[in-house]
Amino acid sequence: MQADDVPRGAELAAALRSYAAIAVVGATGAVGREALQQLAAAGLPAARVRPFASARSVGATVPYGDDDLAAAGLDSSAFVDGGLALLCADVATARQARALASGRDCALVDNSSAFRLDRDVPLVVPEVHGRRFAASRPRFVANPNCSTILLCVALAPLCRRFGLEEVVVATYQAVSGAGLPALAELRAETGRALAGEPPAPKVFRETCAFNVFSHDSDVDMATGRNVEEQKLIDETRRILGLPRLRVSPTCMRVPVERAHTAAVRVRLAAVAREAEVRAALASAPSVVLVDDRGRNAFPTPRLAAGRDEVLVGRIRPDAAEEPDADGRSATWSLLVCGDQLRKGAATNALQIAALLAAPAARAGPR
Amino acid sequence: MQADDVPRGAELAAALRSYAAIAVVGATGAVGREALQQLAAAGLPAARVRPFASARSVGATVPYGDDDLAAAGLDSSAFVDGGLALLCADVATARQARALASGRDCALVDNSSAFRLDRDVPLVVPEVHGRRFAASRPRFVANPNCSTILLCVALAPLCRRFGLEEVVVATYQAVSGAGLPALAELRAETGRALAGEPPAPKVFRETCAFNVFSHDSDVDMATGRNVEEQKLIDETRRILGLPRLRVSPTCMRVPVERAHTAAVRVRLAAVAREAEVRAALASAPSVVLVDDRGRNAFPTPRLAAGRDEVLVGRIRPDAAEEPDADGRSATWSLLVCGDQLRKGAATNALQIAALLAAPAARAGPR
Repeated sequence: MQADDVPRGAELAAALRSYAAIAVVGATGAVGREALQQLAAAGLPAARVRPFASARSVGATVPYGDDDLAAAGLDSSAFVDGGLALLCADVATARQARALASGRDCALVDNSSAFRLDRDVPLVVPEVHGRRFAASRPRFVANPNCSTILLCVALAPLCRRFGLEEVVVATYQAVSGAGLPALAELRAETGRALAGEPPAPKVFRETCAFNVFSHDSDVDMATGRNVEEQKLIDETRRILGLPRLRVSPTCMRVPVERAHTAAVRVRLAAVAREAEVRAALASAPSVVLVDDRGRNAFPTPRLAAGRDEVLVGRIRPDAAEEPDADGRSATWSLLVCGDQLRKGAATNALQIAALLAAPAARAGPR
Repeated sequence: MQADDVPRGAELAAALRSYAAIAVVGATGAVGREALQQLAAAGLPAARVRPFASARSVGATVPYGDDDLAAAGLDSSAFVDGGLALLCADVATARQARALASGRDCALVDNSSAFRLDRDVPLVVPEVHGRRFAASRPRFVANPNCSTILLCVALAPLCRRFGLEEVVVATYQAVSGAGLPALAELRAETGRALAGEPPAPKVFRETCAFNVFSHDSDVDMATGRNVEEQKLIDETRRILGLPRLRVSPTCMRVPVERAHTAAVRVRLAAVAREAEVRAALASAPSVVLVDDRGRNAFPTPRLAAGRDEVLVGRIRPDAAEEPDADGRSATWSLLVCGDQLRKGAATNALQIAALLAAPAARAGPR
């Protein structure tokens, strides 16, 4: 893994432009809109972009650069030879899309959880897997859970350099992870709270205004874990190639519009000095250190919103472990913030798509 | 320790009324106002309550039941024989008050961190220490840090029943922990954000509206811990009587008006079944279980606000440990929510004061 294994900027744009056509399935949702915005920024002509939506939203328009594009109902025309389909919809739509695309030489990158644990489907974070997964030209690739991508970008350099034994993580997740209606609800509920009006939540089971609550996904009756926590466990293990990694997650929603935060405590397989841990993170692809103890300035969701990088800070030897005589510790705490609609979803999917583009089309190294 | 070791209701009120006079030092602050409200509710006549404030706030009035009381500047008249002084101010004021009270048979309960680690000063959570600490009639008792009180109420029953080896905790702390100006800033900054105006924070270093950030206390340049985290480590160890307990905290502020939340991962000294862990918590004083997996209903700061109990839920075997053949695990995750101005500050201080009142004055058992 090297930094230039992650397509970005001009290389990313050129690779995306090499596709004959790009379908965005679930184009009216938060991730779909984000993907369209990035495709427009990459210079892909509107004529080669096709937005698709669920029956409820067919005909709705979505912005694309200076244009407005009308969303069509999903059918096999979305999947053309030499094309790309970004699936930004639910599990059922992902299954439907995969069936419809059968036999086409079309690359599908799926944001849903439908196939993430399927052995035949690569689950990819370019910062972890590099370019190798693309060598076999898989036609269907799963984009991981948003919190998991952001976490893995920060864990990968520590895993490579020191080995990883345990991860305890508590998340502070933005409401937009639950979609645009959830974002609208945060603003509406907060307005009501400021006006002294009683809560009237619809998307979440209780008001998200000035509140914190267990992630809104279902809870497993036997384990007590919510679905988000189970994804974080299963997908982190698969992405890092550590099927027995101990992962202890608590996933919570906070009144934040955009960008997830995670308080992370890692136990490494080897002891390390602070300078070594810091160096491993500082040189990692897509990681930006924000770690100024003197100014009390560390990653925040507001700083991370709208960026493709993952902000890492508050890197410190864990208080629960006494450092050895050489000042080395195996247990470290850190804070991770990232935009879950960009690197946690659309950006990661587009980077995967760039790596899946025919090598000749890519402007990047090797 | 038994449930009836924690004074509440009629016993608490009677014990507080037994004091000749009660001084509230720092009466215009968030904790001072909360204490006054509870004293009024306990039926203590206004004539026996004296609010004191810093030079800046002398003359300001504070509500007391149907009355408004004017705050005086602090002098030795605050400390009378047979009286109580609740110190709801800063470290410097606590030191000054302790000196001024010297020689008086006046009980002082201090909310500041000035003497919390002083061996000669008891640091008390009634749910942990019971009534015994009061037998020697200490005239100066420290009230712990707010997050620490709430955490210890939930940890104590686990510690007593199973022993405790490690606590990893990530907090979601309400802005009112930083005082009333911080609470006003949350509302003002949130209003600005909803109106599309740029942030203009004064109390916090960055906007608290729709944001999450490392606790606003200072950061130790060597350890990387903020002061709140160091308090949580030092005070939890002292309160539980486990000077070498491994404690790994991350303390964060979230856009919540009132009540702190903590995601807690504990490693017990012995393996336990889920029913045993649940029973230990359910029967613990001041703990209320809110733990309905089917309804996805767990503790939230909104539920905890205004209550004296600590809400505990999401009790589950930790995902990082494989349960043994009998389904027992030593590692458990849970969620803790409590009102940091009540049980985390004023209520705990008043309960300590009740236990310090002359035993004959107390209506409670033993």
